Formats: sequence, C-alpha cells, structure tokens
Amino acid sequence: MDQECVFCRIVKGDLPSCKIYEDDDVLAFMDIGPVVKGHSLVIPKAHHNAVTDVPPELLCKVVAVAQKVVRAQMAALDADGVNIHQANGRAAGQVVPHLHFHVIPRFLSDEHSWNWKTRKYSDIPEMQALADRIKSRIKG
Amino acid sequence: MDQECVFCRIVKGDLPSCKIYEDDDVLAFMDIGPVVKGHSLVIPKAHHNAVTDVPPELLCKVVAVAQKVVRAQMAALDADGVNIHQANGRAAGQVVPHLHFHVIPRFLSDEHSWNWKTRKYSDIPEMQALADRIKSRIKG
Repeated sequence: MDQECVFCRIVKGDLPSCKIYEDDDVLAFMDIGPVVKGHSLVIPKAHHNAVTDVPPELLCKVVAVAQKVVRAQMAALDADGVNIHQANGRAAGQVVPHLHFHVIPRFLSDEHSWNWKTRKYSDIPEMQALADRIKSRIKG
Repeated sequence: MDQECVFCRIVKGDLPSCKIYEDDDVLAFMDIGPVVKGHSLVIPKAHHNAVTDVPPELLCKVVAVAQKVVRAQMAALDADGVNIHQANGRAAGQVVPHLHFHVIPRFLSDEHSWNWKTRKYSDIPEMQALADRIKSRIKG
C-alpha cells in the first residue's frame, strides 16, 4: 500500500471505482477516461510500479484476469476486437505508477486508431545487432 | 501449425526471423517494422488466433517471457520505458492472426506517442451500466 497511489487508494476503498472483478490478488475496474467506452483496467492489489517489478506469479494472475475481461467485453458489448495495452515508465505513457493493464473494447465503427507509425532498419545487421544486445540480457 | 500463418512459418523455420528468445512453448523475435527500434514480438509457438483462444497456462508462459523481454530491453538499450501492446481482431489493429505481444522500448527522445484520445461518459450511470454488463459476463 502506497498512501500516495491512486490505485492503492481504490484498492483500499478510499477512492470510489466502478468494479467489474475482484479477488484476493487482482482488481478490475472501469477507466473513467476511456479510449473507447467500456475501457477497463486490471491491476494487482499489491503495489508494484511496473511489469519490471512484479513477481511472475502475480503477473500471471493479473493477465489471467485481463483475459477474462477481454472475453467478457467481447460477449457483453458485442465488441469486434479488444486491445490490451500496458505502459512502463513515463516515457511509455504511464501516468499512474501502479502496474495496470488497459483492456479496451474495439469496434469497426469506433473511429479510434493507434498511432502505429513504423520505422525502418537501415539493414539487417542493424536489427541483428539490437537483437543480440537484447538477447544477451534475457535472464532465465 | 497453420500452413498459411506467417508466425507459424517463422516458428517452423520456413521463414527467417531475428530471434531473441526461444523455449519449448514460446518464441520472441524482432518486429521488422518497429514502432521504435528494438521492438520485439512474443508469441506462443502453438497457433492461437488471439488472447480469447489461448489456454491460460500458455498465456502465462508467453507473458512471463514478455516480462523478460521488457527487462532485457531496459537493460540492453538503456530504455526509459517499455510498452506492451496486444491486439485481438482486425478492429483492434491485429494484422497477423496468431496471438502476439508487442514489446516496444521507449525513450524520452523517441518522438512516438500513442493516440490516447479519451472520451467522456455522459454520467456515472452510463459507465455503471457498461460495468454491470461486462461484470455479468466474467467467468470464473
């Protein structure tokens, strides 16, 4: 519990939220500023800043609930698709520093599109060099 | 194995890829059209169209690898943050219908921003009604 954390305060009940799922470890509730209406958030109840900080077992529980929410949005809202989105760090767009997964229902008519502007590697060796660096730091 | 699926063909080795991690169940490799250079994909080797279709145990393994890739990108590329992004269905932007998690390193200087245009609920009851519908379809 982080006294300053908005999501910890929601978990504790000090701030109101519109809950859609709760168990001992995980909470899911509505995002009050939806990218598309129905947009939900799935969080561990325990405070962890980001994916980097959470034990894999708890991450697994959170994502299993996210999967339930994806399926429920599809069924309940007759969604055409669903996005899962997650940000770690301010540079990634994270606003609340308590690990959360956005689960966003999508409709062919929703007029939302992600900015998916892609770049090009100069050549294969440039990509391979980055791959080698990432690979060398993967643990386990 | 889906003969028509690009990612199944990568798993099988029929198409080349720049791999960063591989085990019996999960493969991670570089996205050739990166949103930010270093952009990686994490997939189950078995063909599942989307999050809706994958057994939770396998989803857990895939996400545990995604977590390793997040940590590796932070360490190897000195990233300021990382996004995890996942699309289910064409309406959500899914292009290859084989479950995949994008793991995208982010830098304060990367000049990328997601389109995060939010909407407003007319009132709390509108949000509550959607929450009730989603909640009623959550299983387990």
